[in-house]
Amino acid sequence: MGGARFIAGDWGTTHLRLFLCDGEGTALDQRNGPGAAESTGRFATVFASLTADWDSEHGPLPVTLCGMVGSSFGWVQAPYVPCPARSQQIAAACTTIEGRIYVLPGLSCQNRFGAPDVLRGEETQLLGVLGRLEPRQLVCLPGTHTKWAVVEEGEIRDFFTAPTGELFAVLREHSVLARPPQGGDAAIEAQAFNRGVASVVAQPDAQILHRLFECRSRTLSGDLPATAAAAYLSGLLIASDVHGARRALARAFVPGTVVLVGAPRLTQLYASACAALGLHTDQVDGATASLAGLTEIYHRLS
Amino acid sequence: MGGARFIAGDWGTTHLRLFLCDGEGTALDQRNGPGAAESTGRFATVFASLTADWDSEHGPLPVTLCGMVGSSFGWVQAPYVPCPARSQQIAAACTTIEGRIYVLPGLSCQNRFGAPDVLRGEETQLLGVLGRLEPRQLVCLPGTHTKWAVVEEGEIRDFFTAPTGELFAVLREHSVLARPPQGGDAAIEAQAFNRGVASVVAQPDAQILHRLFECRSRTLSGDLPATAAAAYLSGLLIASDVHGARRALARAFVPGTVVLVGAPRLTQLYASACAALGLHTDQVDGATASLAGLTEIYHRLS
Repeated sequence: MGGARFIAGDWGTTHLRLFLCDGEGTALDQRNGPGAAESTGRFATVFASLTADWDSEHGPLPVTLCGMVGSSFGWVQAPYVPCPARSQQIAAACTTIEGRIYVLPGLSCQNRFGAPDVLRGEETQLLGVLGRLEPRQLVCLPGTHTKWAVVEEGEIRDFFTAPTGELFAVLREHSVLARPPQGGDAAIEAQAFNRGVASVVAQPDAQILHRLFECRSRTLSGDLPATAAAAYLSGLLIASDVHGARRALARAFVPGTVVLVGAPRLTQLYASACAALGLHTDQVDGATASLAGLTEIYHRLS
Repeated sequence: MGGARFIAGDWGTTHLRLFLCDGEGTALDQRNGPGAAESTGRFATVFASLTADWDSEHGPLPVTLCGMVGSSFGWVQAPYVPCPARSQQIAAACTTIEGRIYVLPGLSCQNRFGAPDVLRGEETQLLGVLGRLEPRQLVCLPGTHTKWAVVEEGEIRDFFTAPTGELFAVLREHSVLARPPQGGDAAIEAQAFNRGVASVVAQPDAQILHRLFECRSRTLSGDLPATAAAAYLSGLLIASDVHGARRALARAFVPGTVVLVGAPRLTQLYASACAALGLHTDQVDGATASLAGLTEIYHRLS
């Protein structure tokens, strides 16, 4: 483990995670802070207060930051880089603050449905896994807005967005379809998730619109415990997301694995749905991938 | 036009509409009142106060009521009749109050996706259009929970539910995808609705999950006015509902028309989406269909 060489930061909408890193990107120390939404107008102050003691000990270090810190409501706006994009293009498009802080851009593309699409933050996770990918690989980054990206020979070709997590949250909180579980049992919920997945596997080409009401009707008919309706909904949504992506990407899919990058809780759910649909997966922790991507950019810029 | 013979009422969750009718079901007079949700514990009082003067003039008349008035939170519970179901079975399953008020049951079925499904209120609208249907006909009843029903030779075979209206409402109000329009222009919104429909027509088999983010990304990229994002979302959802239903019902579809029954504002939107997908439609006002269904039940029970 070497000495401190740079600071890496993932500054999303709701959280900031800063790492003091050695030259290999190994975290020597960590600080957590407020997300970009809460830091409007005081990004510099927030950053300085969290890194002051690192500065005193090591002098001012280079910094690589990704996430909403580079959005229109961020510290500086780091414009989207159009796909296809490689690591060096993303590095070259970083926006610099105070000569030593590099804010990563997001990516844009025309997606496979003919619509404009964007991501911000996930480009860094993609950079973090580029080295371990097959020559042609599908990467899924599950979240509020799940991203499906096609990567070929080190190049992020294109991607599209499925607001699977957001849809789940708004339906659970605001619809009559799946009320929040009260006193839910983890085993019963896991079983309900698997039933939701199995429902999609049985009729994979059904429009998810025509399956959502099941969460309620199965509860009303006594076929599903009310506390498990949300887990059933989650299974329906994630399996529909996976099968729909497979169909949309039929030509891009290779017989290999789908690489899942994100919070382990989420990648595990996607891995279960993928397995039920006959797809192999490889899971990578999103925080690890992000730090690896920030390290890659540090190497390119130093 | 004959004298008053019966009272017909559509008592949904949020509204009550009562009609004083002649023997043909022509409305001679009308009263509006509070919905079932608001009438809990005082259904009899609400009904009596609204019909007192009709009673004094005509004496106590037979009454046919449909909608949530027969649900578990209604005046009485009128249990679901399992499909396939005909008019006479629905009439026979009415629950009687005070010997003269007949509350229609809802319908249940195992739907084409292998899930239990239910409807309440739409059975009356279906009864109201039975006489004008082809021997094998698809009927779509758009709403918060759109119902797609297959009717053959006077028999309601089965149906399924698409919570298209509810999904639209929760996404517009609670997601980042399509904020409510402010100062929207009707012409621009109509154009955006048609663009959403055209988007689905261009790639009809896409999972709607993978199209929703477009509402936001097209707005961000300047491709769609922010005030029209909700109309675009509506086009995406309704066209996906129609195409998905067509696919699910491939064997049930006949080369004839789809009969659309509901609020004219909604059946018009579904008719536009159907036309763009190459389907002919016939629109029936839901209130008219409901009154015809309540009349049909009055005839069967009198």
